[in-house]
Amino acid sequence: MIVPALLLSLNLVQDPVADRLAELRRVGLQEQYAYALLRQLTKGIGHRLSGSQAFTEATKWGELSLKTMGMQNVKLVECMVPHWERGGEAEITVEQDWRSPRVAPRRLPMRLKALALGGSVGTPKEGLVANVIEVKSLAEAEKLGDAARGKIVFFNGRMDPSLRPGEAYGRSVGQRVRGASTVAKLGAVGVLVRSMSQTVDDEPHTGTLVYTDGVPKIPAVAISTLAADQLSSMLKGMINVRMKMNCKWFPDAPGANVIGELTGTEHPEEVIVIGGHLDSWDVGEGAHDDGSGVVQAMDALRLIKKVLGQPKRTIRVVLFANEENGGRGSAAYLEYVKKSGQKAIAGIESDSGGFTPRAFSFSGTDQEVAQYNPWLTHLLPSGIERLTSGGGGGADVGPLGSVGALLVGLEPDTIRYFDFHHTMRDRLEAVHPRELQMGANAMATLAWLLSENGVKSGPAKPR
Amino acid sequence: MIVPALLLSLNLVQDPVADRLAELRRVGLQEQYAYALLRQLTKGIGHRLSGSQAFTEATKWGELSLKTMGMQNVKLVECMVPHWERGGEAEITVEQDWRSPRVAPRRLPMRLKALALGGSVGTPKEGLVANVIEVKSLAEAEKLGDAARGKIVFFNGRMDPSLRPGEAYGRSVGQRVRGASTVAKLGAVGVLVRSMSQTVDDEPHTGTLVYTDGVPKIPAVAISTLAADQLSSMLKGMINVRMKMNCKWFPDAPGANVIGELTGTEHPEEVIVIGGHLDSWDVGEGAHDDGSGVVQAMDALRLIKKVLGQPKRTIRVVLFANEENGGRGSAAYLEYVKKSGQKAIAGIESDSGGFTPRAFSFSGTDQEVAQYNPWLTHLLPSGIERLTSGGGGGADVGPLGSVGALLVGLEPDTIRYFDFHHTMRDRLEAVHPRELQMGANAMATLAWLLSENGVKSGPAKPR
Repeated sequence: MIVPALLLSLNLVQDPVADRLAELRRVGLQEQYAYALLRQLTKGIGHRLSGSQAFTEATKWGELSLKTMGMQNVKLVECMVPHWERGGEAEITVEQDWRSPRVAPRRLPMRLKALALGGSVGTPKEGLVANVIEVKSLAEAEKLGDAARGKIVFFNGRMDPSLRPGEAYGRSVGQRVRGASTVAKLGAVGVLVRSMSQTVDDEPHTGTLVYTDGVPKIPAVAISTLAADQLSSMLKGMINVRMKMNCKWFPDAPGANVIGELTGTEHPEEVIVIGGHLDSWDVGEGAHDDGSGVVQAMDALRLIKKVLGQPKRTIRVVLFANEENGGRGSAAYLEYVKKSGQKAIAGIESDSGGFTPRAFSFSGTDQEVAQYNPWLTHLLPSGIERLTSGGGGGADVGPLGSVGALLVGLEPDTIRYFDFHHTMRDRLEAVHPRELQMGANAMATLAWLLSENGVKSGPAKPR
Repeated sequence: MIVPALLLSLNLVQDPVADRLAELRRVGLQEQYAYALLRQLTKGIGHRLSGSQAFTEATKWGELSLKTMGMQNVKLVECMVPHWERGGEAEITVEQDWRSPRVAPRRLPMRLKALALGGSVGTPKEGLVANVIEVKSLAEAEKLGDAARGKIVFFNGRMDPSLRPGEAYGRSVGQRVRGASTVAKLGAVGVLVRSMSQTVDDEPHTGTLVYTDGVPKIPAVAISTLAADQLSSMLKGMINVRMKMNCKWFPDAPGANVIGELTGTEHPEEVIVIGGHLDSWDVGEGAHDDGSGVVQAMDALRLIKKVLGQPKRTIRVVLFANEENGGRGSAAYLEYVKKSGQKAIAGIESDSGGFTPRAFSFSGTDQEVAQYNPWLTHLLPSGIERLTSGGGGGADVGPLGSVGALLVGLEPDTIRYFDFHHTMRDRLEAVHPRELQMGANAMATLAWLLSENGVKSGPAKPR
């Protein structure tokens, strides 16, 4: 027992920072408090779309939790947010087209598992029925021309399983976001979109759509990947699809970002933001998207306070409003920063699920990011294998780039992410307490290193 | 579209190996055939402890599957294996000790969730009842002395949640393996062991125990981590525990390793083994442990055959018998190699679960392993971030080190592994098709690079 004690004391002399950060990780993993917070948010409140009562409750929970943790300057930064309601289940039904000379080879009508896309208009109360035309991409849809008139266009581009999930999502999600307006221009009356997932199952995935100004708004719905495969196999001209959706828009509603901080002892005006978005889609419990980012940021600040003490620069948790369908929260926070006279030096966001961390993506060039590589020694135990360049942090901290902030995104393993993303399945049970906590530990570590060393004061070195 | 095509053609000229390996990964992820194989093994056969009928069926399935895939020299390498049966559920019950003046503060008797340790003897038919004494480690148990006499010793050392799962397991598993004989020497009559898991839940984890020769064999059982916490809180002297287990040993039974290969075109006598173990504990479906390793190795060979063709050196799948409770399969395979006149140049094993790959651990020094670092460019897309040194491959390929083979272990993310390891929960549903396939792709890549470049012919370079 003498030798390890000796080594330990030598170690303390040589690298107190390493020991303090190891202690932070140890406490984090022992307590796994991020998961306790996530349980409150997901089971106590549940899903929380902007404009809903649940979102307001979530802001109160965030405010109260940060105060209870003893954080400083806890408050709400208010903003108006969109208010859209799903209005119950979308009824999407495949029917025999009796004008067709052929009879469909299956027993019809057949109901498809579906979720209205976020922001979609509803159908007429009695629904709408039309013939279906299938395309695999926006480009293909644009070429439909008059063939789209009066039709329901079925966007059946799949997320390529041979690509990384994030890359496959990026290549395919355009059909969800812009599909409706693309074909509404051509006279289409409705849109079905294959769910954004590499897995073939019966779970529909919602997500935002954006209507182009001046183009008729037509209803749009995501169907499960399994339903998409089934529908595709039935498209021989003898079927119709009936869409019935009661989605509705309301006037903007009050909302808020929740903030709280540990004020810097040496440079209180230099602020490092850590955060995620508090709103979620109105299905499941918003556990991975983005309850995880919310509680990771909160627990990171709690761990810094408990284990490391007051930082030299301000570290601030921001729980952003309205990431999913508007981005009003991040815009409002940017305004708040500009008015405050403070300097946003960095923004660290977690919004890719609460899975095992693998990397931090930084804004900036390879050379700029390489300055931080010595810190990997403190980040590797939390799963961070590398710092990548050219990133934008994420939708919430991204706007802080316009005032010169370093943008950082936590990049976890995303293989399972799209099994849960924007679905009923995105519940607490899908999150592993240890994976979640490793992300909180990684965020705490990076935020604190930035607070001690600053962002632009020459090559940053571990101390 | 011209520029990417131009780049692609340049790329083809410059690095055909990279393109062929990229194609292998693409096909692997598109087909996800490893998961289809795992479905056959887990749902068609289920768990398969050495000596059981199911294990024999699994060997036939392995042989038939490799033949169907068109592999060469498919055969069984026979060996005798131990045959132990659990004999139904272990009944572990906390009872009031009526000799105690105090009454236990809970309603008793209370049944604890338990699984006999693999290889345990049974209790007398009517069970055994004794007072319980708790220890946290083997060292503490050894100091019990006469206090252990006539008692059931409760090993309640926990897997430290602040350590990496594999490290925490390594530090705690001794109580499971050697606890029984350690206290039997002191006169104890039975052993309860806290399950090997960092998670507190009601799932007991079995696993092997080893009885020391010449020491009385006493029954030993794992209780869930939750049951362990409950039992610990009740140990005030007024309780007993009743153990009732019908475990039984039978004479050794016939068993076999399954092998099949792609014979090398230039150096057929140099063999690269890829494998996992075909046997499993007799609970759940042996999906992560080690159905995953089995199907990854099989699909790796299938992908090499389909996409890359016949290798320069022989690549051989070995599905090992009896890893869990004896190691007879790996010993028999070593004998087979020695008799064959072939040279085992490398052994690559997957036996840490079918999760996202993160590293390969190599036998040898840092310097020796660094020779292979240029290959990381082909491995990174399958999740392999680094090659580590000083490893031993795993229990199955490990013995090949004695004939000079390079030993390699696939190291996936193990955070969730111990939620499933040796439990009823280790079923197909716990494995993600894409995570599993990335491991198969990584094994195929490494095996093929070794087959093309050899192991000891100077610093290996990517070609």
